[in-house]
Amino acid sequence: MSDSLADLHPLDAATLLTPGPDGTLTGRTSPAYANMVGPFGGTTAALLLRAALEHDRRIGEPVALTVNFCAAIADGEFAVTVREIRSGRSVQHLYVELRQGETIAANATVVCAVRSPTWAHQSATMPAVPPADALPILTGKPPLAWLSRYDFRYTEGPPFIPGAAHAEPQSARSVLWVADNPARPLDYLSLAAICDVFIVRIFQVRGTRTPAGTVSITSYFHATSEELAAQGTRPVLAKADSMRFGGQFFDQQGEVWSDSGKLLASTTQVVWFRD
Amino acid sequence: MSDSLADLHPLDAATLLTPGPDGTLTGRTSPAYANMVGPFGGTTAALLLRAALEHDRRIGEPVALTVNFCAAIADGEFAVTVREIRSGRSVQHLYVELRQGETIAANATVVCAVRSPTWAHQSATMPAVPPADALPILTGKPPLAWLSRYDFRYTEGPPFIPGAAHAEPQSARSVLWVADNPARPLDYLSLAAICDVFIVRIFQVRGTRTPAGTVSITSYFHATSEELAAQGTRPVLAKADSMRFGGQFFDQQGEVWSDSGKLLASTTQVVWFRD
Repeated sequence: MSDSLADLHPLDAATLLTPGPDGTLTGRTSPAYANMVGPFGGTTAALLLRAALEHDRRIGEPVALTVNFCAAIADGEFAVTVREIRSGRSVQHLYVELRQGETIAANATVVCAVRSPTWAHQSATMPAVPPADALPILTGKPPLAWLSRYDFRYTEGPPFIPGAAHAEPQSARSVLWVADNPARPLDYLSLAAICDVFIVRIFQVRGTRTPAGTVSITSYFHATSEELAAQGTRPVLAKADSMRFGGQFFDQQGEVWSDSGKLLASTTQVVWFRD
Repeated sequence: MSDSLADLHPLDAATLLTPGPDGTLTGRTSPAYANMVGPFGGTTAALLLRAALEHDRRIGEPVALTVNFCAAIADGEFAVTVREIRSGRSVQHLYVELRQGETIAANATVVCAVRSPTWAHQSATMPAVPPADALPILTGKPPLAWLSRYDFRYTEGPPFIPGAAHAEPQSARSVLWVADNPARPLDYLSLAAICDVFIVRIFQVRGTRTPAGTVSITSYFHATSEELAAQGTRPVLAKADSMRFGGQFFDQQGEVWSDSGKLLASTTQVVWFRD
């Protein structure tokens, strides 16, 4: 690790990719975002997006990102390749793979676009919640490194899992303010990571923790980079819910809102679990 | 076209893929599912899923499907390739591309899994609607071939676009019963297609038609093949809504329900549009 790496925000350090002579990018997992097994999935999503955004033929801003988590990512180095699938005049499709040895541990499809102003309308409204500064920052979090990389302020849904099964399934819904810790101005990378910031829904519904992991996540970015810049380092509002659990999988739908009530991203994921 | 092709259901004919000596699959667009430009996207989603399901190393049943529409698909032949990305004990990742000449017109990531029974819970409930047979089948549809491949019974949201802009944006929500026409027992292919069956949301919201097309769709399959078989040829309930429109793109969230109130699939897409 160089001295300059230590000066970077942990998210920038965790998503740092160094190009080799054949165009393959090299990165390494960051202890700052360690999860139960391997890195926090949001960091992986952010780094696959960053690989696409740093591609020398990339146009425009990201619109859609699907990341598939294909195998556990071991602590250490990985290689990332980006392939240009199709570039139209204003819309571009890229395909990204992350490898460790012979194993493709994650892949992603990315849609970028040079967006022009059009008719605009937000049909959804932000959940009515207290402002972030009216809520306490969650303390006493479990000792997983990535949980310390975010400040959470819950307004709906229990932040902690009791560890004893509920007699009846509880709501899968949570609403909370989220900010990077340390503070970092919002951009597409941090937004992509925040789309995966929700505690595993089935833990909240059942009241117990069992092995579980995201298999695939899709996020759509509705905000322009100017809107993200305007949000700065202030917390964003994040909401998640699920619809059906069973046969080892469940879904999750999420939304990320600016504090001025603009939908910045919508996201969905499918999660594997074991009893 | 052979005689045997004529005996197939139009969806099976439209998704028919013939393997060549190098494993590349060949298919062709079907006039039965023609849309304004190229084929109905649901057919493309179904055929990329079918390519994955027919892969000789495929395990289990489909859990997640993301299809990116990268270029217009011209009427005629296309080539489809399937690559095995990663196969674990019970979860498998595949990557599919559809080419016409040098152009990758669509690609897809597919997650399959050998699902085992687990704790199960449906936290969402089906919209309260009249049964399908209490509603008339929509007639007088615009003359697009694919619209004739489905019977629609609307219970919420206008089935037709007035053609004169609304003074104020209208709701993006629609709820309708949908069935293949001619009837076809529900399977993952028809379910994948039905996930894309909603009329472009922005037409309904604005009251006018402008150029628009799905850029990326993600569908999660919650039902086992037994549940789909139990649904048979009876209509499924489909619901769609959108949250934000602007900068040439908008999102859509959708659900597909069995008539016994089980969530069969959840789906989301991002759609390009022009003013």
